[in-house]
Amino acid sequence: MLPFDMVEYQQRLMNTKKRMMDNGIDVLLITDPANMNYLSGYDAWSFYVHQMLVIIIDEPQPLWIGRYQDSNGARVTTWLYDENVIAYPDQYVQSETHHPMDFIGTILKQIGQGNRRIGVEMDHYYFTAKALERLKRSLPDASFLDATSMVNLVRMIKSNQEIEYMRKAAQIADLAMTKGVESIYPGVRECDTAAEIYYHIVKGTPEFGGEYPAIVPLLPTGDRTSIPHLTWTDRPFSEGSAVIIELAGCYKRYHVPLARTVSVGQPNERLKQVAPVVLEGIQAVLEKAKPGVTCGELEETWRKSIQAHGYEKEARLGYSVGLNYPPDWGEHTASIRKGDHTVLQPNMTFHLIPALWFHTDGIEISETFRVTEKGSERFTAYPQELIVRDSLNLGGQIS
Amino acid sequence: MLPFDMVEYQQRLMNTKKRMMDNGIDVLLITDPANMNYLSGYDAWSFYVHQMLVIIIDEPQPLWIGRYQDSNGARVTTWLYDENVIAYPDQYVQSETHHPMDFIGTILKQIGQGNRRIGVEMDHYYFTAKALERLKRSLPDASFLDATSMVNLVRMIKSNQEIEYMRKAAQIADLAMTKGVESIYPGVRECDTAAEIYYHIVKGTPEFGGEYPAIVPLLPTGDRTSIPHLTWTDRPFSEGSAVIIELAGCYKRYHVPLARTVSVGQPNERLKQVAPVVLEGIQAVLEKAKPGVTCGELEETWRKSIQAHGYEKEARLGYSVGLNYPPDWGEHTASIRKGDHTVLQPNMTFHLIPALWFHTDGIEISETFRVTEKGSERFTAYPQELIVRDSLNLGGQIS
Repeated sequence: MLPFDMVEYQQRLMNTKKRMMDNGIDVLLITDPANMNYLSGYDAWSFYVHQMLVIIIDEPQPLWIGRYQDSNGARVTTWLYDENVIAYPDQYVQSETHHPMDFIGTILKQIGQGNRRIGVEMDHYYFTAKALERLKRSLPDASFLDATSMVNLVRMIKSNQEIEYMRKAAQIADLAMTKGVESIYPGVRECDTAAEIYYHIVKGTPEFGGEYPAIVPLLPTGDRTSIPHLTWTDRPFSEGSAVIIELAGCYKRYHVPLARTVSVGQPNERLKQVAPVVLEGIQAVLEKAKPGVTCGELEETWRKSIQAHGYEKEARLGYSVGLNYPPDWGEHTASIRKGDHTVLQPNMTFHLIPALWFHTDGIEISETFRVTEKGSERFTAYPQELIVRDSLNLGGQIS
Repeated sequence: MLPFDMVEYQQRLMNTKKRMMDNGIDVLLITDPANMNYLSGYDAWSFYVHQMLVIIIDEPQPLWIGRYQDSNGARVTTWLYDENVIAYPDQYVQSETHHPMDFIGTILKQIGQGNRRIGVEMDHYYFTAKALERLKRSLPDASFLDATSMVNLVRMIKSNQEIEYMRKAAQIADLAMTKGVESIYPGVRECDTAAEIYYHIVKGTPEFGGEYPAIVPLLPTGDRTSIPHLTWTDRPFSEGSAVIIELAGCYKRYHVPLARTVSVGQPNERLKQVAPVVLEGIQAVLEKAKPGVTCGELEETWRKSIQAHGYEKEARLGYSVGLNYPPDWGEHTASIRKGDHTVLQPNMTFHLIPALWFHTDGIEISETFRVTEKGSERFTAYPQELIVRDSLNLGGQIS
């Protein structure tokens, strides 16, 4: 039932404990659901209530602490012994008077961890300002250290099994992009195409099913192509406008994102001009990527490539990607941008998305790649090009 | 383009400022994306980076502060003047050295808000422990107050326009439940049914499109029906097992959730026993619900109804529901449980989901209802019953 064998979970735990030791942390409170999953296998949509995995440096197994009605899920989806699953009663859920961290603080005290150095994921969504305040109140003798990204950094280099799961996610991404693009005609609504994409992301292939991605398919259209994070509307596509599709296939919670820009009818002048610039830049970055090169150097390669054509880009080009839960599939570690000194190593995986946005339009073409022993390789097979849905061609053929 | 007219936004802002005054708050920092949308119209999948709406008690318009690449989205989707949209550069995104709250603190100081009483949503997902720490550091002369749920409480009573949107969401929920249930046969995979449900949630009706719900369709099956928050797998349904479907239709970000339990083949003894108990309890609660009654009294009605049959329930029965973003469609205000003294008022809306979970199985049948002038009314029309997919019936008719 577990997606990885026990040796792999033990290795992950050991790597985490090594970082805890290096940072003087005795007890690590994991609230990032991707990190919880990575270390224990826990997989459920329960992160909308407070929950955590507790890693104690001198204990062999983590503790899972969460809501009572989710505790069966912890027993079923993790490798933890049942006695390491601890549940708080429902009165602690979204209450003005009871806070789950009061309960958790009491447990930590009871098991002798009340005066230790406790690492918390200070900047993670699911560790709120109030969570820290209440923990501090119930553990006055503990000291708290910032452990944001501590486990995320362990996650950066994937195992072969993780890469295998990403390859399956890539097949789903290719399928969903193909079906999504094929559904685009003038008059079809954005929500119809989004539905088509979602259908295939979730259904997956006949051999294996898909899962919900950490971000919904993004589908900015027309003027909105200048705004990357808008979702779909129910307006119809119109001849001459552009559509950006950004989606991810997901398998065992591992993501492979993929973005393409689609011209409905013949592309306008802007797209004709910028598409080759972006494609050339992507090629340059993929050729540059190999062990030993830094993320900052990848950005430099891109910058020089597009500068030669008179373009520049404000935002980062990409980020480390893999295991995740909403609201983000990025790993919040390395970014492909100026000043990022992360050195590429084999089996690191990135989503390279060097989008260009202008005042009222934009273009996105992306690739998710793995760093190999000697270079890099793409996960998906979808053609790397500006997609033209020419309505004059009644078959709707993709040129 | 905005889903509500300006009078409604102004009314919401006025109601919020009234609560600010009552609580001695000069400046309110809104990080809950549902609250941001409620007050400004802002709608994008950008909540995975730090962003906020700043309400200053003596200023007529809020400020939107967020990532540069999302600022066009704030101009397009909100009623704010362009000069009230403030963007931070990309170097602040998921960085170890730069934090968006440093930028935001500096802005607040520059506009003369550095020494005021600042309300923050202490227990919201998108206001992390680090966000507060960095704000406090850059605003040493400000005092910080907990304003968790301040705007959520304003949201509890819906306008007629909001109810109208929820009615559309309900049509989508009915459609998706119908299609999802019809797709269930022995041998069909859970992911195939989840795909069918998602397709219809997103496509919506020919008249209006659907949107992504704040929680994915939940589909615990077989043994897993004892665990409410598990999502689908790619295992096939088998004759004699049960499936719980919990989904929501979503329109203009307003949700109407709906849960049903499906027996694949003839129901087992447990389902035959508990389904009538749950249905009777739901009827009792819906009949009890009317203005003046408290949430705690609804729970008491339920408790007595099922106690008569020898059952009890640990968790809350339901919660206020409406506008939302991932990871939760609940409003985090009133819960239908013991000790909740919220008094029902017309146009409050609740998801009543009095699930019963046992060691290895469970049942969920839910209704989303509106409090009317004299009682309550359901949003959806889907039959309120245990659903039986009898495979002997080749047409797959729902009995």
